[in-house]
Order: sequence, then C-alpha cells, then structure tokens
Amino acid sequence: MSFLQTLQGRRGDRVPIWLMRQAGRYLPEYRELRTRHSFLEMVRTPELAAEATLQPTRRFGFDAAIIFSDIMTPLEALGIEIEFAPGPIIRRPLRVRPDIERLELRDDPAPYVGEALRLARAQLPEEIGLIGFCGAPLTLAAYLVEGGGSKDFEHFRRLLRADPDAMHVLLNRLTELSVAYVRMQAGSGAQAIMLFDSWAGLHDAATYAEFGVPYNRRIMEAAGDAGAARIAFALGASHVLDALAEIPCDAVGVDWRTDLAQARRILPGRALQGNLDPAVLFADRATIEREARRVLDAASEVPHVFNLGHGIWPQTPIEAVSGLVRFVHSYTR
Amino acid sequence: MSFLQTLQGRRGDRVPIWLMRQAGRYLPEYRELRTRHSFLEMVRTPELAAEATLQPTRRFGFDAAIIFSDIMTPLEALGIEIEFAPGPIIRRPLRVRPDIERLELRDDPAPYVGEALRLARAQLPEEIGLIGFCGAPLTLAAYLVEGGGSKDFEHFRRLLRADPDAMHVLLNRLTELSVAYVRMQAGSGAQAIMLFDSWAGLHDAATYAEFGVPYNRRIMEAAGDAGAARIAFALGASHVLDALAEIPCDAVGVDWRTDLAQARRILPGRALQGNLDPAVLFADRATIEREARRVLDAASEVPHVFNLGHGIWPQTPIEAVSGLVRFVHSYTR
Repeated sequence: MSFLQTLQGRRGDRVPIWLMRQAGRYLPEYRELRTRHSFLEMVRTPELAAEATLQPTRRFGFDAAIIFSDIMTPLEALGIEIEFAPGPIIRRPLRVRPDIERLELRDDPAPYVGEALRLARAQLPEEIGLIGFCGAPLTLAAYLVEGGGSKDFEHFRRLLRADPDAMHVLLNRLTELSVAYVRMQAGSGAQAIMLFDSWAGLHDAATYAEFGVPYNRRIMEAAGDAGAARIAFALGASHVLDALAEIPCDAVGVDWRTDLAQARRILPGRALQGNLDPAVLFADRATIEREARRVLDAASEVPHVFNLGHGIWPQTPIEAVSGLVRFVHSYTR
Repeated sequence: MSFLQTLQGRRGDRVPIWLMRQAGRYLPEYRELRTRHSFLEMVRTPELAAEATLQPTRRFGFDAAIIFSDIMTPLEALGIEIEFAPGPIIRRPLRVRPDIERLELRDDPAPYVGEALRLARAQLPEEIGLIGFCGAPLTLAAYLVEGGGSKDFEHFRRLLRADPDAMHVLLNRLTELSVAYVRMQAGSGAQAIMLFDSWAGLHDAATYAEFGVPYNRRIMEAAGDAGAARIAFALGASHVLDALAEIPCDAVGVDWRTDLAQARRILPGRALQGNLDPAVLFADRATIEREARRVLDAASEVPHVFNLGHGIWPQTPIEAVSGLVRFVHSYTR
C-alpha cells in the first residue's frame, strides 16, 4: 500500500515507511546545504526547503516526504520573533495576560511554506505522499510562555494553573493561526497534515482534555475540510490516549514508549504510525531488524505506516537507515 | 494514621502528608542557610544536612522528613566526581566499556548521610517518619553516561542499544553500591527508603523490564531485609506500571500525570503516595483545595500518603504549602 492508501485505512502486504526528522542533520547532503545556509534561511527559501524535503526520499526511497520546516514557523504571523539554537528561543516570552491579549494575526502564516510545498509536490513521484504539519496549540504555548525548551516548563505550567483564562485566550489565538496555516498547506500540495503535540506529556489527562483536545480538534477538522489526511502525534502521551481518541484524525503517531497493542485497543479504526525507538538505529543490524520486526508484528492487524517513535537523531548512521528501509519494504505480514 | 502506619497498609481518617523536595529552595530558612554554605557542603556536613531535613517539618507539621541529600551523593564511593549547577554534572561521562569496567566500590558510600540521619532522628518527634533514599541504577546510569541532565539522553540510550552488556555491567556496579547505601541508611535511622527512578519514563516497557526492574528489585529487597518500609517512585512511568508491580515495595509514588485509579488497579495491595501537580500550588486557594480533594478522593480506597506528583518548585508560595497541609489534615474520607 502507498502511504496515502494506508492513511485511508487500507492494508496490503507492503508497509510504507518514512521517518520523523528525515530531512535533517544525520544526512550528509543536508549538512552540505547547511554549510552555506542557516536553518531559518533554508526554511524561508522555498527552493532550499523543497530541496531538503526531497533529499531523504531520493536517497532512501521513503514512501512520504515531510515539508522541511519547524512547528514555530507560522508564529511570525502573530508578530512573535523566534530564533533557533538549534531549539527555539523566544527572547520575549509571554508571561502575563496583556502580552497574550496583544497577539493578533497580522499576515498570512508562512506563505513560503506553501511555495515550498508546491515545488516539492511538482518534483515528487506521484506515489510518494507529501506531508505538511503544524504544532499543537498547547505545545506552541509551552514554548511561547517558557521562552524555549525546558525540562519542567515551570513558567508555562504555572500560568496555566494561575490564570487558566489567559491560557485559553492564547490557545484560541494559536488555533486560529494554525487553522489558517493547515488550510494553506492543504491548498498548496500537502496531502496529509500531521499535528505535533510534542509536549502533551507534561499534562495529566484532565488538563489535556481541557487545554489540549478542543484546540487540536478544531485544527484537525479544518485539515479534513480542506481535503487532507490527518495524523495526530503526541509525545510521551500513553496516559492521555483516551483523550487522543477524541481528536478527529485518520492516523495516530505513536511514540516509542507507547505500547502499540494498547494504542490499537484505545484507538480503533485509526491507522497507526510508529514506533521504533530512534536509539535502536545505533545497534547492530540483527538487533535493528529484530526490533523493527517487533514493531511490524505488533501493528500487523491495523493499517500501519512504519516510522520511528520520535525524530531521528543527528548522529544516526546512514547505513542503519537504508538497511531499515529495505527491511521494512521486504517484510510481509 | 501516621506516615509509617500508612506504609504498613493501614487506613484511618487522617491522611499523612509530606512533599518531595520539601527541604529546599522554596523555604526562606533553607535559602538563608545556603547564603553561607554550598549545596555540597550542606549535603556533606551532617549537622547542616540534619538541619535542612528538619526545617520543613518544623514549619509545616509534615508527617515525614526526608534526608537532605541528592541521588548522586553515593557515587563518590565509586570514584566518580559530581558537581551541581544545580543539576548534576559529570565532567568525565562514562561513554565506553573500559571506563565502566574500571568502576569499583572503594569506600563505604556517603557515611555522612548516616550521621545526618542519626542526628535528624534524634531531634524528630517520634510520630514523624524519617525517609532515606537512593536513585535507581538506570536513572544514575543515565546521568553518568550522558554527563548530566538532558532532554533525550541520546548518549545513554545509544550505549544501552549499542552495548547492552556494558550497560548491565554498569547497572550491576550501581546496584551493589545502592544496596550497601540503603542498608547503611536503614541502620542509621531511616525508617523508610524511597527509590527515585526519575528517568524511568525514557524507556519502553520491555527495555524497562530488562534494564530497570531487576536492579530496583535487588535494592528494595535489601531495604526490606534491613527493616525499612519501601516506596518506589518512577517519573513519567504510567506506561510501565505493570513493570513497577514487579518491584517489591510497600508504597508506590505516583507522578501527577498517572491516573490514581489506574495505579490502584495495577498495584493492588500497595499504599499510594502522591500526586498533586506541583504547578497547582500557584493557583488560588479554592483551586488548590479542589485539586487536592480530587487527589484525596481518588485515593480514598487505599492507604494513601498525600504528596505532590513531583518535587516542589523553588518559587512556590509558602502560604500555599501551609494551606495545603491544613487542608489535607482536615480532610476526612
């Protein structure tokens, strides 16, 4: 089955594969591009972003390409300045309500991403899927309030508890932005939209049900209305699988810690995407194949897109990736 | 019920309470001590460590005191140098097998912790429990291989996959150290031993069953043989609750994201400790009481020690803590 057919709920002998962060630092041809261009320059220049998007499919024969960008990219349209080092840094974090209420959608979000999608789609073989993506509002809010990545996101979680109304104002603004952004991507050639809720795992289930689910639902509804297939991915989220079941989507991305059998039970009728531990790609070939088989077997009863359970690591050996793709493509249920 | 009676499986009207990291930076009298002494100086000077241990019970009327120390403290006895800034930093991380095989137990682990426990026990009212603790081998290994805290612990997880035998050698060494350390603490006045597996949440269940559970079991068996009550705490571990059920202990510490009802089902016959989100202490009084009541109600069918679901944050308002203690002590099932 192709990537898109699998998202549509079909199962065949051949399992499609792509890897989160497959366009990135582990790839020599990407590192070569980066000697001449900064990360932001690449994201904002459609020709460069399209090239980075296509590199891994050319080298490995992946079944899908994901647009080279970052979940923070569209925030510029709210007047927020982001730097990358390499994680996102927000020099003026949103810590108080007036800063949040001042946010407004000034421009179309990241039109260069739309242009990059059109360029990539034009160059991709028809059977290879093209994925657009956006960050979940609750994850974007975590970075915006904290000012960057963090172990415990204390400022963010504190604001959520101390002023939940302000948090809802922020989440509403981010959702409006994201709805416009995924519509634009679906209209520019993205056949699937993946929602990254990278910090869903910070929250207990009741908090996630109130501050996460309703906003994710609005974005996924908009992506569906625009004709895109939809993948929801929440990291460290085995304790909120029930809440994820409330989000409309065709597939759920499963992280390496979440049991696929449990995900299957809680999420009937969805395709599953995942979930090999990215650390396994540093093991010997026999171990990689054993662990990949475990993933394939655990998902053999559902439509399954093979993937890692988190983004690929910068030091990953190239041969481990090509071996994995061959192994997955040769696997038959 | 007292703290210790609750760990013994008894339930009464009064729920005991203490808070993880209750001896620490949110407390003015602790910050005052720290103007004159470094963190390591305090840990290594029994009079100072005992004083920091006792401060929170004096101010708030907690039902237990936990020895002022750090999970990295006993590693000195393996010849490993640790700095704190404030998280642990290991300037010479263990990245290759020869470095691991060279480790040997040179001295008794942290005898000053034993002396601090004796001093604290002598000054504590009899009905207040005294807790010693140690880090789980897999969590200590994470810091030792990585060189400090990290988002993804890539070096550590890579070594575990690339050279699992070396990882088992390291875990065995750390377990021998921890067994000696908890015996010493139990013999020095610690009536309960708490095992902190702070990075259990990095691993899928199969990996945790192989690299986490057997070592934790040996430590808890040693603590039990030495006559201490036992609390096992694993952070971000709702996906490995089944594996936690394999570790002998009297109580399981539950983090703020783990559903208490689910923990009750998977861990029958154990007392539960937890699990208010530390961020809730920044909300208004009505919210704190509502959320604390939710925790108390969810655990009302089991022996329950009230606690946070993670360590208290440095900025936490003192009045929120005193209000919480009053509320929990006045709660009746």
